[in-house]
Amino acid sequence: MFGKKLILQGSLTIPMQALRLDKSLSYRNDISVPKLAAGDALIELSLAGICATDLELVKGYADFSGILGHEFVGTVKAVADDEHRNWLNRRVVGSINIGCNACEVCRRDGPEHCLNRKVLGIRGKDGVFADYFSLPVANLYAVPDAVPDQAAVFTEPLAAALRVVKQIAAVPVTGVAVVGPGRLGLLIAKVLSLAGYQVTVVGRSVSSLALPEQWQLTTDLIAEIPDNNFDCVVDASGQAAGFAQALRIVKPRGTLVLKSTFAASAALDLSKVVVYEINIIGSRCGPFADALTLLAEGKLPVATMIDGQYPLSGGLAAFAHAAQAGVRKILLQPALHSDY
Amino acid sequence: MFGKKLILQGSLTIPMQALRLDKSLSYRNDISVPKLAAGDALIELSLAGICATDLELVKGYADFSGILGHEFVGTVKAVADDEHRNWLNRRVVGSINIGCNACEVCRRDGPEHCLNRKVLGIRGKDGVFADYFSLPVANLYAVPDAVPDQAAVFTEPLAAALRVVKQIAAVPVTGVAVVGPGRLGLLIAKVLSLAGYQVTVVGRSVSSLALPEQWQLTTDLIAEIPDNNFDCVVDASGQAAGFAQALRIVKPRGTLVLKSTFAASAALDLSKVVVYEINIIGSRCGPFADALTLLAEGKLPVATMIDGQYPLSGGLAAFAHAAQAGVRKILLQPALHSDY
Repeated sequence: MFGKKLILQGSLTIPMQALRLDKSLSYRNDISVPKLAAGDALIELSLAGICATDLELVKGYADFSGILGHEFVGTVKAVADDEHRNWLNRRVVGSINIGCNACEVCRRDGPEHCLNRKVLGIRGKDGVFADYFSLPVANLYAVPDAVPDQAAVFTEPLAAALRVVKQIAAVPVTGVAVVGPGRLGLLIAKVLSLAGYQVTVVGRSVSSLALPEQWQLTTDLIAEIPDNNFDCVVDASGQAAGFAQALRIVKPRGTLVLKSTFAASAALDLSKVVVYEINIIGSRCGPFADALTLLAEGKLPVATMIDGQYPLSGGLAAFAHAAQAGVRKILLQPALHSDY
Repeated sequence: MFGKKLILQGSLTIPMQALRLDKSLSYRNDISVPKLAAGDALIELSLAGICATDLELVKGYADFSGILGHEFVGTVKAVADDEHRNWLNRRVVGSINIGCNACEVCRRDGPEHCLNRKVLGIRGKDGVFADYFSLPVANLYAVPDAVPDQAAVFTEPLAAALRVVKQIAAVPVTGVAVVGPGRLGLLIAKVLSLAGYQVTVVGRSVSSLALPEQWQLTTDLIAEIPDNNFDCVVDASGQAAGFAQALRIVKPRGTLVLKSTFAASAALDLSKVVVYEINIIGSRCGPFADALTLLAEGKLPVATMIDGQYPLSGGLAAFAHAAQAGVRKILLQPALHSDY
């Protein structure tokens, strides 16, 4: 009800809060609630996560201007089409790619790789660091009651982690190293471990390995690992130096899963890729439904990754916190108190 | 006979010619004929090829000191073991990796990827730009009479080209682009074409595409090719800029075969690898026996790639010639006239 009223009466008159990137990041409270296109839902934000990609976007990666944010859990408050009324007031998460649905890539591989796609908070589409945002109903997944908001907000990175399991399924692998014990690395290591792999989480400092150990994962310092040591290495470090280390410790004819994007170009030496015939597999988005199932089973203590929770009005401080070394997950919500 | 006599009487007293790399490349005529270890053959050089790797080694890649050269055809003049007498006076080519034969990698994958291996003229083992050189008999392949020296000398790069065909056999591929119309790119494109792929040879200049067209291959200028255009792209450019172009023209979820090593580290942007889940396959050495069979069938007009043939004493000029843009293959031989 509220949603419909909002759309009909208030989309231009009720301003909302948002974190916008226009060369630099700013907190605004004068943004219009988005209008819905056919197929869209209007979602009220409950909780959002700041991801490494958001930090890169602020540095200039991908040239994005608009409202940031793509990891969220929220509630559907309006829908553009009557046939989608069953989504109203449901708690949802959502996949981030909006394909053109017309090209060869969309038809063959889905929207994730469409060259004309929009990506929530990343490319041509305002994101979720706002009181309200829109997303096609086709992208939504209802959140099971067993999954609290503080777990559901990890659906997107957990889905991305599950993608790695699928990609290496056909590769003969015994030991896997995950380089980078951060937000994404920890999720990848845990789902690989749940899938039966012998996993080692690799970090640069003892302190970075405390949480992986709390998650009952085997850990090691990168400096302790000899060259050519693992059949498969996942680089989730988000840094060119981490990629170089991942390449150093992968065995001849091994597999390196590249999971992290680093800003602009970095000085890299790929000669080992040729000389030792390394296979590099780029890895991005994954299956939301599987991620929600795993969260509902309670097998991942994701809330232990939360290092801070900020109101949107404290968004700049939240980003500064998220950028600090060793910080895993910073969450944003419309306001810290429900009486906002 | 001559060979045995040489070993017994002359290894230290008969000096030979060689091109040695010791920080810089030099022509020497005071080098001792190599002594044989168990399993070795002594080979008299007939013809050798200068390869892109040789040019990189001179620039400092892989920190090699010693006699350069690994592409050759020659004649066995002595063997260390009586059981190998049947190899005497046979015309041979040879694979370049000498594994430790003891490690897990040697047992599983063969000597190409052994971490303790020596590599002829590249790592820990003097190469073939000399009157004589040694190589284990286990590395030798007899050259069929139907293959003249000027074709046999291409066995090693042709084997490396055939490796690409094997590596992409399991990948669903329609169109393949080969970036870099040089020595290796031309061989790769031709064997892919013979294997039934739709191949486009991609170069930066019209003149670089003349020989590929003479070989009846489809060609295109890199500047004419739109982004995301080929399922599979082979980078045989030998340059970081060529790798960047290969990455630019490969389709989402496509395959990029990395065939060329470039010196030291280069500024590279790998974000497309992640965002579009590109699969990069490092590719190195290939099957000599298959290469010799193909050469015996006369399906590759390899001699048209020869741009110059120099005596070892003209080795420095030969290297300068080989390093020029557009030059494909420069050969070396002990002397230009047989009365040497």
